[in-house]
Amino acid sequence: MPESKHIAPIQPMIPLSEINSPEDLKHLSITQLQGVADECRNEVIKLVSVNGGHFASTLGVVELTVALHHVYSTPHDKIIWDVGHQAYVHKILTGRKERMQTNRQYGGLAGFPRISESPHDAFGTGHASTSISAAAGIAAARDLAGGTEKVIAVIGDGSMTGGMAFEAMNHLGDLKSDVLVILNDNQMAISPSTGGLRTHLINITLNKTYNKARKFIWNSISLLNNELGDAAKNAVRKLEDGFKAAFTPGAFFEALGLRYFGPIDGNNMEQLVKALKEMQELPHPKLLHIVTTKGKGFMPAEQNQSKWHAHSGGFDTTTGETLKKADTSLPPKYQEVFGEALVELALKDNRITAITAAMPSGTSLDLFQDALPNRFYDVGIAEGHAVTFAAGLATEGFKPVFAIYSTFLQRAYDQLIHDVAQQNLHVVFAIDRAGLVGEDGPTHHGSFDLSYLHTVPGLVIMAPADEQELRDMLYTALYDLKGPVAIRYPRGNGIGIPLRKNFESVTIGKGQIVREGSGLALLCIGNMTSKGVEVAEALQKEGIDASVVNMRFLKPLDTALIDEVAARSTHLVVIEENSRIGGLGSAVIDHLNEKGLNKPVLKVALPDAFVTHGSMKELYREIGFDTPTMAENIKRFYKGEER
Amino acid sequence: MPESKHIAPIQPMIPLSEINSPEDLKHLSITQLQGVADECRNEVIKLVSVNGGHFASTLGVVELTVALHHVYSTPHDKIIWDVGHQAYVHKILTGRKERMQTNRQYGGLAGFPRISESPHDAFGTGHASTSISAAAGIAAARDLAGGTEKVIAVIGDGSMTGGMAFEAMNHLGDLKSDVLVILNDNQMAISPSTGGLRTHLINITLNKTYNKARKFIWNSISLLNNELGDAAKNAVRKLEDGFKAAFTPGAFFEALGLRYFGPIDGNNMEQLVKALKEMQELPHPKLLHIVTTKGKGFMPAEQNQSKWHAHSGGFDTTTGETLKKADTSLPPKYQEVFGEALVELALKDNRITAITAAMPSGTSLDLFQDALPNRFYDVGIAEGHAVTFAAGLATEGFKPVFAIYSTFLQRAYDQLIHDVAQQNLHVVFAIDRAGLVGEDGPTHHGSFDLSYLHTVPGLVIMAPADEQELRDMLYTALYDLKGPVAIRYPRGNGIGIPLRKNFESVTIGKGQIVREGSGLALLCIGNMTSKGVEVAEALQKEGIDASVVNMRFLKPLDTALIDEVAARSTHLVVIEENSRIGGLGSAVIDHLNEKGLNKPVLKVALPDAFVTHGSMKELYREIGFDTPTMAENIKRFYKGEER
Repeated sequence: MPESKHIAPIQPMIPLSEINSPEDLKHLSITQLQGVADECRNEVIKLVSVNGGHFASTLGVVELTVALHHVYSTPHDKIIWDVGHQAYVHKILTGRKERMQTNRQYGGLAGFPRISESPHDAFGTGHASTSISAAAGIAAARDLAGGTEKVIAVIGDGSMTGGMAFEAMNHLGDLKSDVLVILNDNQMAISPSTGGLRTHLINITLNKTYNKARKFIWNSISLLNNELGDAAKNAVRKLEDGFKAAFTPGAFFEALGLRYFGPIDGNNMEQLVKALKEMQELPHPKLLHIVTTKGKGFMPAEQNQSKWHAHSGGFDTTTGETLKKADTSLPPKYQEVFGEALVELALKDNRITAITAAMPSGTSLDLFQDALPNRFYDVGIAEGHAVTFAAGLATEGFKPVFAIYSTFLQRAYDQLIHDVAQQNLHVVFAIDRAGLVGEDGPTHHGSFDLSYLHTVPGLVIMAPADEQELRDMLYTALYDLKGPVAIRYPRGNGIGIPLRKNFESVTIGKGQIVREGSGLALLCIGNMTSKGVEVAEALQKEGIDASVVNMRFLKPLDTALIDEVAARSTHLVVIEENSRIGGLGSAVIDHLNEKGLNKPVLKVALPDAFVTHGSMKELYREIGFDTPTMAENIKRFYKGEER
Repeated sequence: MPESKHIAPIQPMIPLSEINSPEDLKHLSITQLQGVADECRNEVIKLVSVNGGHFASTLGVVELTVALHHVYSTPHDKIIWDVGHQAYVHKILTGRKERMQTNRQYGGLAGFPRISESPHDAFGTGHASTSISAAAGIAAARDLAGGTEKVIAVIGDGSMTGGMAFEAMNHLGDLKSDVLVILNDNQMAISPSTGGLRTHLINITLNKTYNKARKFIWNSISLLNNELGDAAKNAVRKLEDGFKAAFTPGAFFEALGLRYFGPIDGNNMEQLVKALKEMQELPHPKLLHIVTTKGKGFMPAEQNQSKWHAHSGGFDTTTGETLKKADTSLPPKYQEVFGEALVELALKDNRITAITAAMPSGTSLDLFQDALPNRFYDVGIAEGHAVTFAAGLATEGFKPVFAIYSTFLQRAYDQLIHDVAQQNLHVVFAIDRAGLVGEDGPTHHGSFDLSYLHTVPGLVIMAPADEQELRDMLYTALYDLKGPVAIRYPRGNGIGIPLRKNFESVTIGKGQIVREGSGLALLCIGNMTSKGVEVAEALQKEGIDASVVNMRFLKPLDTALIDEVAARSTHLVVIEENSRIGGLGSAVIDHLNEKGLNKPVLKVALPDAFVTHGSMKELYREIGFDTPTMAENIKRFYKGEER
């Protein structure tokens, strides 16, 4: 008996205000789900237009997020969001709607998923390419415990270029565990993504031949199958395996042991819900390839996705026009000074090459890319490879400069030691975002680089006190050294000193006294030099006349200068925006011990803890880096009240 | 006119003694090349039977090495040997034949390629999966400089599971640069390799359907092509692209933009020479898949490839029988004590899981694999993934133990910080081969772990003084802690104390005085505790009565014990087998400074330099770690002659 067809009743739209948990999405129709998605999208646009935040990625996955929470049931099922900056709608739908106003603010919600924030956040993220590994681990645990929960990793095509995503898929193919990897292909990471795999994905999406041929063969095999006996079926199955694997557009993933599905339109709610329900029934590792538009639903972002990857807030929610004018009185950012200086030098020296791991605009290497495209390399989110690639260039007499955020250099620590330092190769590490970074929080603070680099033999480590010194240090790194060099500098604006046109060498291993005082000396590195001067001025008002030293180098350490300053000071203070363990403070104290100079030394540094997110001002206040608190603590140390 | 066939004259074999550089291979026939290969193989067997060394990998690539040096011309062309332990024949053929007797010995040749050793060594290796990155960098340099040299990376299927190999291929597909990747598929890394990609490679090698179907389709397309007009040809070409890509067995590599060739028999000289000559003509990135037998030509090694991966020497060159009897009086190795203890604990606790990155036998996790295969995970050479996989297991209440060599943990530094420590997950890092490792040299010494781990917030770091303490610390890590823990222990044998049956907790952050003395105190960590006792005994003969402290923990540091010991000592010495920068020495000195306790402290630690290769005895002598020198240096410090 044929089923009776009936016309679905027109269902009322459900306002977002009535969605308080994923449960409330369970019984909605496709149309109602799309309604919720539309409202979520508007929420995100409103939110970011006021508060700022990551943006275009979230807009691309609005439908996916709603569909996932409709089909799956968190926190029983586990969704891991790679990088996690696309999880705003996930947060809205999992009980954090009201608190979204506090997103990325001090004391508020984190800009990324956090286990501590919600049971719906199965795994904390921030750095790219971790989600499949985490999903594999969670799935392995489920399999051991005999659980039934589903495990889903949502990963962008940019993150897919990271080696650990490959390592995880390779392992998953071996585990044969029930994990769904959703490849969110927006053909962009933060910038347009690169790499051979990218081409492969484009081929899949565009090549009609592939898909037609595949359909034809699959159908033929099925037909054949129905008309054959068992022995013949076995023979055909063997053939079929070969054909299927060969004809699958996602041959890359199939080769690793993940069954490939797609591509489907990842902004189409109906297709998504249907596909996810199918995925739910499959017990093996599989990958669903969805194609989404980054910035979807906000025209300015759709049209310029890199620009709208993240936004600091203050724009018109329709036109995208900036409401508050940019403050043109601000000094240039460190990253810009770096990017411009490197182009200036490279225009005159064709041995200079520039490398980024998918961050051309964040590092300002886009300037280099525009000016000298043939000496510019964007290797994808692939920090480890980037460093050894640089090492290869250096063996042939080129001068590679790898610009990278401090926190991401942790991904290439072994390559820095094993491939660069051990062979004493002339690779320049331009370490951006060193120290605290503000709203992105603990996953992105550059808190450890001075510590983990200090122990690397033969590495020269410097940090500029201001943007002029950054130019000079870059010049020095390229022309006065023959081995590995690291230059670390902070996020944000320089201190506003006028820039000299020419470059001047900085003497290797030599610091500089920037303020003469007596009794107390502040030994500072990098951006803490100007802070040190501010603190000294505050102390002056209290009758304390502090010297301020710009150490410039952590390695080699200017031990002569330390001795000189120590000789005429009763108390030393070391100020660095780096963990209090293993940085300049430890280096100075070690040296004094070695010399037998017993001076009290106060370390003013980041705490031995993961610092939270918030504005720099708030974070500085929390850790005692605001000038009054720092001055007060130093005064108490100097007066013998605190060490 | 048909070419006249003629019978090739019988060519005399060329003895290896006449091969003094790759040039001497240029005009040899296939038979002569095979003759040289046979002699090389015998050389390697003789060499390793006496001196020890890596073994089975080199035997597998004897033909490849001879063929490469016949077809290509180093040092103009660049060959990069991944890991590099298979490069013995390369060294023999490139002017180091006589010096091979000194292989891996102090002052002799390194066990791996080294730029500093020969112009034929294009890039130094040691850690896995770096070769394609280095090759890409060298090729990029060549392309910028307009050079003509060929660049070849030789990489095993085990190394191919490392994420940076994937990152490099993905980038190479983008660069479209002339690089030949030779995938040396011996279906083993050190142990049988794992992962989805492994299955893919086996499919390629075994699946006749694939190869037949491919041949048929390619031939059909070629035939068709010859009979068509231009418009039709275009249409066919489109189809052809789809078909070719789809039918290529190396779809994985083709997806990344490398043209795939093979598989061929990598122990067949004729096939190799022919294939390499073809490769030479192709201007794009390509991969030649060769299948070799690890241990080829030495029957015992062919039959047990894991066992014969490396050998310490002293075996019969025909039967493989050990000539000198194993010294059964030696205490068990640390790794064995660890492996056995973990099995013992895991048999009673099904939350304990074990993870290795392709080193089950090196870490003794093979014991766990045998006993509890369903809770054992070999993730391949994929340290980054291993750590985040462990983090995933930990979020679900399991207790993952990741056993890894100190030097390889550098590959997973970011994951340790970002995925484990930041989420305060209970993952146990069993860090083997911490400190110097002897003959493997600088690429394999575990010189930095105390330094780079110390700065990680919330990580507990301990090191056992002996094998009993290793058992107890493992127990403590699993049962007395809830967050991340690192236990570091050295290569080689324990000190031989009898092992207790039961496990006992070690109090977190508490050390132990193991020898009471006065005036001088030696603060030791890990294996340096027994060394400290030896040194104290030597000092006793000089009339110095030193206390010896087993610090046990770097973090949390036992500051109370340091204060106590410092109070009754005039001089402190810190002894650690870790870089002198950033380890226990710095921690102790930092603490004393903070307390305002001005005691002279002597750091006895590894130098701030890459330590060479050689026997532990020779290396200890070089760095002043032999007991007499260490005692003498400490005595001079104590007597005020040296700091």
